[in-house]
Amino acid sequence: MADRLIYLPLGGAGEIGMNAYVYGYGAPGKERLILVDLGVTFGDMDASPGIDLIMPDLTWLEQNRDRLEAIFVTHGHEDHIGAIGHLWGRLDVPIYARRFTGTLVRLKMEEMGLPVEAVNIADARPAVTQVGPFSVQFLPISHSIPESSALLIDTPAGRIVHTGDFKTDVTPVVGDAFDPVGLAEVAAEGEGVKVLACDSTNIFSTHPGRSEALLATPILEWVMAQPNLVVATTFASNIARLKTLADAAKASGRRICLLGRAMRRMVSVGLESGVLREFPDTIGPDEAAKLPRSEVLLLVTGSQGERRAASAQLSRGRYLGLSLKEGDSFLFSSKTIPGNERSVGRIMNALSEIGVEVYDADDGLFHVSGHANRPDIEAMHDILKPRIVVPMHGEHLHLREHVMLARAKGMAAEIAVNGAVLDLTGTTPKVVDHVETGRLYLDGNVLIGSMDGVVRDRIRMALNGHATVSVIVDEDDNALPDAWVELMGLAERGRSGADLVRQIESELSDFLERADARTVRDDGKLDEAIRKIARQVAMEEIGKKPEVTVIISRLMAD
Amino acid sequence: MADRLIYLPLGGAGEIGMNAYVYGYGAPGKERLILVDLGVTFGDMDASPGIDLIMPDLTWLEQNRDRLEAIFVTHGHEDHIGAIGHLWGRLDVPIYARRFTGTLVRLKMEEMGLPVEAVNIADARPAVTQVGPFSVQFLPISHSIPESSALLIDTPAGRIVHTGDFKTDVTPVVGDAFDPVGLAEVAAEGEGVKVLACDSTNIFSTHPGRSEALLATPILEWVMAQPNLVVATTFASNIARLKTLADAAKASGRRICLLGRAMRRMVSVGLESGVLREFPDTIGPDEAAKLPRSEVLLLVTGSQGERRAASAQLSRGRYLGLSLKEGDSFLFSSKTIPGNERSVGRIMNALSEIGVEVYDADDGLFHVSGHANRPDIEAMHDILKPRIVVPMHGEHLHLREHVMLARAKGMAAEIAVNGAVLDLTGTTPKVVDHVETGRLYLDGNVLIGSMDGVVRDRIRMALNGHATVSVIVDEDDNALPDAWVELMGLAERGRSGADLVRQIESELSDFLERADARTVRDDGKLDEAIRKIARQVAMEEIGKKPEVTVIISRLMAD
Repeated sequence: MADRLIYLPLGGAGEIGMNAYVYGYGAPGKERLILVDLGVTFGDMDASPGIDLIMPDLTWLEQNRDRLEAIFVTHGHEDHIGAIGHLWGRLDVPIYARRFTGTLVRLKMEEMGLPVEAVNIADARPAVTQVGPFSVQFLPISHSIPESSALLIDTPAGRIVHTGDFKTDVTPVVGDAFDPVGLAEVAAEGEGVKVLACDSTNIFSTHPGRSEALLATPILEWVMAQPNLVVATTFASNIARLKTLADAAKASGRRICLLGRAMRRMVSVGLESGVLREFPDTIGPDEAAKLPRSEVLLLVTGSQGERRAASAQLSRGRYLGLSLKEGDSFLFSSKTIPGNERSVGRIMNALSEIGVEVYDADDGLFHVSGHANRPDIEAMHDILKPRIVVPMHGEHLHLREHVMLARAKGMAAEIAVNGAVLDLTGTTPKVVDHVETGRLYLDGNVLIGSMDGVVRDRIRMALNGHATVSVIVDEDDNALPDAWVELMGLAERGRSGADLVRQIESELSDFLERADARTVRDDGKLDEAIRKIARQVAMEEIGKKPEVTVIISRLMAD
Repeated sequence: MADRLIYLPLGGAGEIGMNAYVYGYGAPGKERLILVDLGVTFGDMDASPGIDLIMPDLTWLEQNRDRLEAIFVTHGHEDHIGAIGHLWGRLDVPIYARRFTGTLVRLKMEEMGLPVEAVNIADARPAVTQVGPFSVQFLPISHSIPESSALLIDTPAGRIVHTGDFKTDVTPVVGDAFDPVGLAEVAAEGEGVKVLACDSTNIFSTHPGRSEALLATPILEWVMAQPNLVVATTFASNIARLKTLADAAKASGRRICLLGRAMRRMVSVGLESGVLREFPDTIGPDEAAKLPRSEVLLLVTGSQGERRAASAQLSRGRYLGLSLKEGDSFLFSSKTIPGNERSVGRIMNALSEIGVEVYDADDGLFHVSGHANRPDIEAMHDILKPRIVVPMHGEHLHLREHVMLARAKGMAAEIAVNGAVLDLTGTTPKVVDHVETGRLYLDGNVLIGSMDGVVRDRIRMALNGHATVSVIVDEDDNALPDAWVELMGLAERGRSGADLVRQIESELSDFLERADARTVRDDGKLDEAIRKIARQVAMEEIGKKPEVTVIISRLMAD
């Protein structure tokens, strides 16, 4: 069979976050492969209680590891690099990234005791990394973290541009600017761009994106107008924003104190890798606590309401010897990611209770998005003139809208969600196969499958509570009539007003006294009967059926 | 001591939802009391897993029940009436409401087997209900449910206007219009308005509110442009919206099918109580399924992504014989309440996967808010000219902003959060006391205190998983070395690759064999030692410390 070019998202297509995209070229089923990005998404109480990180299930890629040439990393956001430390060991192939991104990836490798040498630092175009049938160039592009790159992937079947996350910012303050001229050259070379795999997250934002540079004046004016202590939070990786905030502090005579590990790390990696130049000197919390409040700006982590981050700690009282007071000012120079509204709201209200003035970015003065809006996406289409558009990084709604937009503009386009193998060889992209995909949960320090039932059981305990029942069966297969019941997460008493534990125990005693020998001898039957009684009594009393653990102890004759 | 006028919120002040406000007049500590509204808020997985409804803890009011004259209900939204069926029995006082609202409250009483005669139907101003020292009039006002009322409460200490939820809509389609002339009369009578207790939810929306009537044309044009089946969802209680949607369906030659119990109930109560006139005839799902898709509009519940509502069911496949197809259209004529973004997003994406075109209200064409925006709140201030403003129904941020606005306009104002007793007697409101308040959770059919620990235990099990350990101590106080362990919501194996249950059991056996008699004899010590080992082994293996239930069975000599 003829060689083919395929695209296979393992994460990021049908969701925002957890980016992981495979490209392949070769004979069907024997394509040589590269992986673009390997990110995480974050757990939430609704769907994944107790889970910190969620990452793509790479089973298919592991099974085809001998075909995998390399991993290319577009930029250093967690949803593009966060799973590398956890999953690289299963793939064991070279990683390519530019310097700043590569430094962040190396830190992740180091933390997990993995070889940092696996991370190769690549230069931007015109430098070319050749792996198997792929010639890959890093194309600098603007985003909300320095040194973001699109990937220019040349294959025997044609040229692919994989945008990664991007915006069309020509004045991004820190990091690479959007370069329409450079991109036009990419489109003009050879046969031009066959495939554009394009960021879709902001497809529903109909106004043109705004530049990071627009924030400098409003932020400076705002900082200058604040009478007391100023606190500002944003994503630590948004180094341009950190610089804008720090410059505003300096210009208004304030010293800068960075709070939160990620904040300090990003500034230091930024300086070391050279993407950040001239960041004002910072002071520690001890020194900040000694200065007059009007001479300090705290730059803190926790813009998404993270419970343990600096902003949450400050909202609850003291943090590292610093505490907020009536008349202080707190700026959220960030957008609240959908799903985090409650956590962010909690912090804002806690600050309000202290008497702190809270400012958010709702009116657009203090934040710009890092992603291309609909007109910017169209600009990308228009500059690159691809024959095929593959929308990526978006929920199904976003991918669908992007496909409709591309088709309306005369390009071929197709939705490929996680697991869909899209054949890009011809003029029309076509889903030709589906591979098993899924999610892995980092639970404590173990990776478990999202469908393993572990999290499902936790959700059930959270919704229904838990009852433990312990019974003892003696050497002669007689059940002792005393059942022990313990409840966790359940009301103590219900409809009848009597103690629920006692009621379950009493019903179980009645049952155990009259239970026939066949049931008592059979663990399965006894377990089921006990479970049913416990749930039934609870249902009658408190209107809930708890999860039940039954422990049957069988005494052995000595 | 001189008589005083007090305001005491028990719910709704420092949060959006769960409204319950007490007013009192009389000698300090002996004031006669009325309660305005008695609503619920909804549980969420983050803070209250397994809890359907949350309502105010009325302990203080129960203790002072002999001083309570009556409950007045401003309108029929769940966050104003939802707790009446659950808590009225603890108060046992007359309820006053206008007809439509009263009908909804009577349904709640009926469902709980409570006497519907307790609900008195009051007429609007100039009718006066006299209870104790309070003369209360219902002032018709506009909101997103028909027949909303502000309350005009005359007391010996002066006149109070309690807005309830309101907007300044003079063309509300269904229900009472905002009536600035009538309100101006209220302000002009006698000594005018002393206190304005005012809705604060939309204080941060800086543009003037928009009228419900503005939606008719865009909705009609939209419905007419849809080629296939049209589905629309909104709050069932927003009868004006139901009418607008139904009228648009009728005008475009579609039959209307109501899906969801709340939807049918609201339309029928609306018609019976007379607030709704001329609602187009509806058809059942059977008939709808038989008609051509272009001749049907489904009006469905579930605009907030509720898992069991009609919209969620439709997004998952079939519902009552109806199923959605590629090319159908689905309109969310509603705003997503913060916290519900994920649930609503799930449904929208599921619809997108079927190929349904999803429309939301983000551009404002298909939804208007039911609450007064900042300029509308100012209009209310300006018309009523109160001497004191008490912001209510809002999170702390909203209350704070409203206080600052009122003070900037020259009025006295004070924040009073749930439990704060605000003395309104003089010219300046002052928090003079705090009473114990809290939240009650409806869990199954039991009301539990939010601080009882039940829900805390559920959250811990959801985050950490659960382990049960059962040990047996024989007649001679010797622990049998076989401990039984069962896990729920925990990974089966971790770092070492060995089975976690076996590992915990083995560590426990080691311990039990060498445990000293003093520990074994003492339930508390034994429990603690076992718990510690189980948690430690789990921590080493999987990086998590589970919740542990220890069951110690002591065998008795016969």
